[in-house]
Amino acid sequence: MHEQLLASFDARVPAALARAVSIVENHRPGFEAILARLHPRLGRARRIGLTGPPGAGKSTLGTHLATRWRAAGLTVGIVAVDPTSPFTGGALLGDRIRMEGIALDPGIFIRSMGTRGSLGGLAASTREVADVLDAFGFDRVLIETVGVGQSELDIARIADTTAVVLVPESGDAIQTMKAGLMEIADVFVINKADRPGADRLHHEIEITLGLRMGQADRHVPAHHGGSTRAIRNPAYAARNAAARDDAERWTPPVLATMAERGEGVEALVTAFDRHFDYLERSGVLRSRRRQRLRERVVEVVERRVRERLWGDEETNAWLDERITAIEDGTLTPFAAAAALLERSAGLIARESR
Amino acid sequence: MHEQLLASFDARVPAALARAVSIVENHRPGFEAILARLHPRLGRARRIGLTGPPGAGKSTLGTHLATRWRAAGLTVGIVAVDPTSPFTGGALLGDRIRMEGIALDPGIFIRSMGTRGSLGGLAASTREVADVLDAFGFDRVLIETVGVGQSELDIARIADTTAVVLVPESGDAIQTMKAGLMEIADVFVINKADRPGADRLHHEIEITLGLRMGQADRHVPAHHGGSTRAIRNPAYAARNAAARDDAERWTPPVLATMAERGEGVEALVTAFDRHFDYLERSGVLRSRRRQRLRERVVEVVERRVRERLWGDEETNAWLDERITAIEDGTLTPFAAAAALLERSAGLIARESR
Repeated sequence: MHEQLLASFDARVPAALARAVSIVENHRPGFEAILARLHPRLGRARRIGLTGPPGAGKSTLGTHLATRWRAAGLTVGIVAVDPTSPFTGGALLGDRIRMEGIALDPGIFIRSMGTRGSLGGLAASTREVADVLDAFGFDRVLIETVGVGQSELDIARIADTTAVVLVPESGDAIQTMKAGLMEIADVFVINKADRPGADRLHHEIEITLGLRMGQADRHVPAHHGGSTRAIRNPAYAARNAAARDDAERWTPPVLATMAERGEGVEALVTAFDRHFDYLERSGVLRSRRRQRLRERVVEVVERRVRERLWGDEETNAWLDERITAIEDGTLTPFAAAAALLERSAGLIARESR
Repeated sequence: MHEQLLASFDARVPAALARAVSIVENHRPGFEAILARLHPRLGRARRIGLTGPPGAGKSTLGTHLATRWRAAGLTVGIVAVDPTSPFTGGALLGDRIRMEGIALDPGIFIRSMGTRGSLGGLAASTREVADVLDAFGFDRVLIETVGVGQSELDIARIADTTAVVLVPESGDAIQTMKAGLMEIADVFVINKADRPGADRLHHEIEITLGLRMGQADRHVPAHHGGSTRAIRNPAYAARNAAARDDAERWTPPVLATMAERGEGVEALVTAFDRHFDYLERSGVLRSRRRQRLRERVVEVVERRVRERLWGDEETNAWLDERITAIEDGTLTPFAAAAALLERSAGLIARESR
């Protein structure tokens, strides 16, 4: 299945890439076979996540990043994800059009994705599309997500480096998700940094980073422009667990950009390179990627269980028959679940074909 | 296990309720046994969901709704959920304090929940806490959620009636989730309706409802105050599938409130009662609740599969051993998943004890 497509993909035919991405994104028949075939080629690309609230300028920033990487001779794949768009799948259309200036470059590939099915499903699809782009040979894979709660955490598991993009105006909106952002950010970007409130936001980020320092020594970071002085932070200690020694800790810099004018983008690219060097040197890259592969297997296992159980007519009929008893209160959902699992062991274990 | 707690719960001791909710919310040992014991008593409460963007005034509205229900002699359980708060779990603290005026009333119980684990997990926990409140005998269970993408869809599956609460200012913020909101709203509330933009928002909601009408006949709804004229809407036709005839279709009214002053709350309570009458009369209530029980079993089945697989040391060790081969590209995640399922069938099928 899809042998011809894969041959064209290997020959780096752009149309084959687009088709492979579509098949994988929509989980069309044969998508697992494609991913399995591409699996040995993974690991070349550096995966960089851009996340943050709507309107933070992630697309503009992404466009400038892509342009700069292209100027350095690197190819770029972009996956733009909007988990707040469960039905339309088209919320990023505007961004896509805005990006079309760079989309004509054959060294750049862009795919927008909306939510289909669950958030968990979207994270899986995003990772799978990133895998296809990696296997095609892109040097950088940029994953852009609108940050709403859980989705930042999911993106942090997909990317090697995660940049959290904020704007001065987003100060209040991010209050509730602040703790989550602190956990996942490898780099902070304050975009539209010429607007009022940029200093306050910068300060707030540092305070929040500081709050997580606990009793450890603290060096107050510089107040602007890519501060890199060490903050000893137990939250990062956990993420940095694989770092070989204390000198290998990573301190998330807070960078100021004005993406519309391209200002600060060079410093951001440098920060990404520095972070990747850190990941490689410290051994964190390998441990993160191993963890990602492990999560990948878990994801596939759970998906198969769901497909085999709920794709089976007989199991569904069996369950339907029990709903009335559950409704009457004579059977509990727990007893029904236990019975269902007991009778379905064979179904779960084996391919149905 | 927990027999004494359940006896106190049966005797309607408030402390027993609080403890049962905590055990269930945090999935502490014995939580399934508690839920199984309470299962036969479910179905008395009317479950009402309030969802919408942060700052829409859901808590204030909820407080007024609770006060009004209490005045009518009804008891009220409230579950306040913030899925944007993955780590703190405390984003609703302010709301909780604000609600304390009503929290002293023994006929009212309030529980705030933040995200722990996945969004899917939060929806399950919310449903389970709502079950405990239902079993305790509350007449109304109010489920308040900050609406961010997927979470509204999840809440719509938990509640009998879902009200989407918007404010004039939220016009832009809701653009991306508009389609989703349209699908799940049984009632629209425009809160802070004295502010500029309320008319525009009202109009926008109607337009969006209208866009979904397709080729069907259309009656333009009244422009303000609980419009109830029929909109023939294929999106609703699907949700109303169990309605016995055409006269039983539900048209989501668009209501204006000023929650701070309690204005419009009476009309909202009436709309909830009308919607519940509709649900009962049309047969939709029973079909929705049956669907909910079915989803409940699916949820429990999938959770048990996860617990049995990933809670098993030997399975984890087996998987760890394979990660290096997956890393080298000599084994794919798909082949590993298939092998894992084959060897773990017995584990999945049977209680480990």
